[in-house]
Amino acid sequence: METVLHPYVPSNLQLENFVANSRTGVSLLVTFFGMLSVFLALLYLLVRHNKYMREDFLCKVKMCWFFSCGFIHLILEGYYFFNYRTLAANNSFLAQMWKEYSMCDSRYIIGDSFIVCMEGITSLVDGPLALYALYAFITHHPNRYIIQLCLSLCHLYGDVLYFTTEYLEDFNHGPYGDAIYFWFYFVFMNLLWIVIPILCMCESFKVLCTSCSSYDLIISNTKKGQ
Amino acid sequence: METVLHPYVPSNLQLENFVANSRTGVSLLVTFFGMLSVFLALLYLLVRHNKYMREDFLCKVKMCWFFSCGFIHLILEGYYFFNYRTLAANNSFLAQMWKEYSMCDSRYIIGDSFIVCMEGITSLVDGPLALYALYAFITHHPNRYIIQLCLSLCHLYGDVLYFTTEYLEDFNHGPYGDAIYFWFYFVFMNLLWIVIPILCMCESFKVLCTSCSSYDLIISNTKKGQ
Repeated sequence: METVLHPYVPSNLQLENFVANSRTGVSLLVTFFGMLSVFLALLYLLVRHNKYMREDFLCKVKMCWFFSCGFIHLILEGYYFFNYRTLAANNSFLAQMWKEYSMCDSRYIIGDSFIVCMEGITSLVDGPLALYALYAFITHHPNRYIIQLCLSLCHLYGDVLYFTTEYLEDFNHGPYGDAIYFWFYFVFMNLLWIVIPILCMCESFKVLCTSCSSYDLIISNTKKGQ
Repeated sequence: METVLHPYVPSNLQLENFVANSRTGVSLLVTFFGMLSVFLALLYLLVRHNKYMREDFLCKVKMCWFFSCGFIHLILEGYYFFNYRTLAANNSFLAQMWKEYSMCDSRYIIGDSFIVCMEGITSLVDGPLALYALYAFITHHPNRYIIQLCLSLCHLYGDVLYFTTEYLEDFNHGPYGDAIYFWFYFVFMNLLWIVIPILCMCESFKVLCTSCSSYDLIISNTKKGQ
């Protein structure tokens, strides 16, 4: 096989038909997160007067989180899941996003089986669940905190596996210690899906415990009254 | 490196210091599940008169499920997580259990990073959570259905990844189609942790939705009354 030069770690990785990105990392990030920011601004305007979260700034921020998750899981990660086999040779905008991200974790560009399956669950399950969580909070649906708990636990489980598998492989799929690729892309970006889900799980747990205690009390009083 | 003969798939797998099991698969399974059965019988006698599940046979069966999960996660999978590096050369009872199981999935004996991390979460998180779920149901703790939901979702997430990663690797770590190793060990034994968690999640979801609806109603009525 012809040896193709590429920027990934380890450098002896064999990537057939690899085509280098035509856009810089900054241009890709600014375009993607710029677009997401426009949607988030519109969403904030939409939920600003929602009667269930009017006075709750943190809840509105949480809505932005759910929307961001839905957007990233369905569009970005959904694209990866359905196109990971042809990524190296592709120069569409989303393919370039993934070729840029693979600089911090080459398991993406080689289609590592754990990464593909985890991204499959994230895009097919977590994505719709995040948008449903948004809908459930906007409509004050009784199951909103249950959905938030399930979504956050899925985030946490997947992300803990994501970090620990790479730790066990001695971080050998990216430039360990690099300020941008290791600390910003690999650690910081993924740490968000550890920290925020833990906060959401704590909130859900607290609310659900209160609801369950109150319901148990009603049932117990009803039984005593009979 | 010296080539060592072993019974695993693929046959060109390099296993340093491999020592063949001294016990048969049947003897290992009968001993382990025999011991578990004694504990389950004792547990059933214990919860038989529990006032919260006296007339609920299915709930008592569920207690047996939680105990089995705790026992298997903590002892069997806990052993794997802390000893996977030395498994091939070890002939202790639990090491032999894993060398037997590896016949259906050699990712265990080679210490595949996804398998090790997933077993780490299972033994360190799911194990204690399963025993806590048992305690929560016996004491009728308000959070019992929340714990059941979290435990079941962890089971489901881990097991879906377990199956899908092997599917993506064309089932090339075991004798595909073999009645015992593929269908019984790999498919049936692991399918339990898909089917039962889905049933538990449905039950939890139903109970938690009812509790949350009732609590939302109380809060809404309190606000109207103010």
